[in-house]
Amino acid sequence: MAGYSGSKHDHAMRLRRIEGQVRGLQRMVEDDKYCIDVLTQVSAATSALQSFALSMLEEHLAHCVAEATLKGGPEADAKIKEASDAIARLVRS
Amino acid sequence: MAGYSGSKHDHAMRLRRIEGQVRGLQRMVEDDKYCIDVLTQVSAATSALQSFALSMLEEHLAHCVAEATLKGGPEADAKIKEASDAIARLVRS
Amino acid sequence: MAGYSGSKHDHAMRLRRIEGQVRGLQRMVEDDKYCIDVLTQVSAATSALQSFALSMLEEHLAHCVAEATLKGGPEADAKIKEASDAIARLVRS
Amino acid sequence: MAGYSGSKHDHAMRLRRIEGQVRGLQRMVEDDKYCIDVLTQVSAATSALQSFALSMLEEHLAHCVAEATLKGGPEADAKIKEASDAIARLVRS
Repeated sequence: MAGYSGSKHDHAMRLRRIEGQVRGLQRMVEDDKYCIDVLTQVSAATSALQSFALSMLEEHLAHCVAEATLKGGPEADAKIKEASDAIARLVRS
Repeated sequence: MAGYSGSKHDHAMRLRRIEGQVRGLQRMVEDDKYCIDVLTQVSAATSALQSFALSMLEEHLAHCVAEATLKGGPEADAKIKEASDAIARLVRS
Repeated sequence: MAGYSGSKHDHAMRLRRIEGQVRGLQRMVEDDKYCIDVLTQVSAATSALQSFALSMLEEHLAHCVAEATLKGGPEADAKIKEASDAIARLVRS
Repeated sequence: MAGYSGSKHDHAMRLRRIEGQVRGLQRMVEDDKYCIDVLTQVSAATSALQSFALSMLEEHLAHCVAEATLKGGPEADAKIKEASDAIARLVRS
């Protein structure tokens, strides 16, 4: 079971909205919309993806990482390293 | 006509791939995939959106902004301000 | 005691290098260096600050957040919320 | 002469403030300040560096790139490619 089971419905809704934004971008390009308006819409979609990631990450820390910490041992350290690497990918993407 | 008409097909293809990545994210959440794997896929989609934006921005500078510069006057300055604001939104999103 | 005491010397060294990069930027501007070369150096300093932040964040998760988790109760939740907010600021800055 | 000569003094002032922020970070680490407070200060310094970069980039577009566009030829294309690459480094850093 994933650490985000309690908010699965919220995550699915968010992602559907992001899919809608990306389809909107396709229509904008199809209709030759002005570059700057397309770029504004890309920034909105990127921000929405980041908010989704941040909310999933918070649940991961609160559930998966916290559980591993309570068990202790090398798996706890591995979970923190893994979460830190995911945070680095988010910060750099 | 938008500044990216010559590469409209490429842009449409890129956006379709990004839509596919977002639909893939929906399936991952639906199937309770591990948070970290979901986050890795979000980073990939975010990077793809940024690459799309950077390519559209380069065409905007090469066409719309360059044309305004050749005409000169206040519209040239306005185009550069407008492009700079779009760049700021990308850097901060 | 801060969660990063063990690596305080490393952090101090990193920050001194970043200070050196920012002083180098001042010399570049003073000497009218080419804009693009200045921008390349800004990207390097920004990346160095992010690496410093990511390394401090990993230690924070491994020490402060892990200790709060072991104690449990509302303070554990508060620590995770606080760390998530700090991650959000990093992702968005 | 660099494209930012008119605002050299402003740029120098901004960079001195950023140097002050990085020195402040060194004092925070020296004094074992709480990780989250250090991270908040890193986000502030990163944002200040990005604002500096965005302002320098706008001047570069308004002066160096605009001049190359007016001259035309392969150098104009090269300047736009060069600026786009610098923007990509900023977006990804």
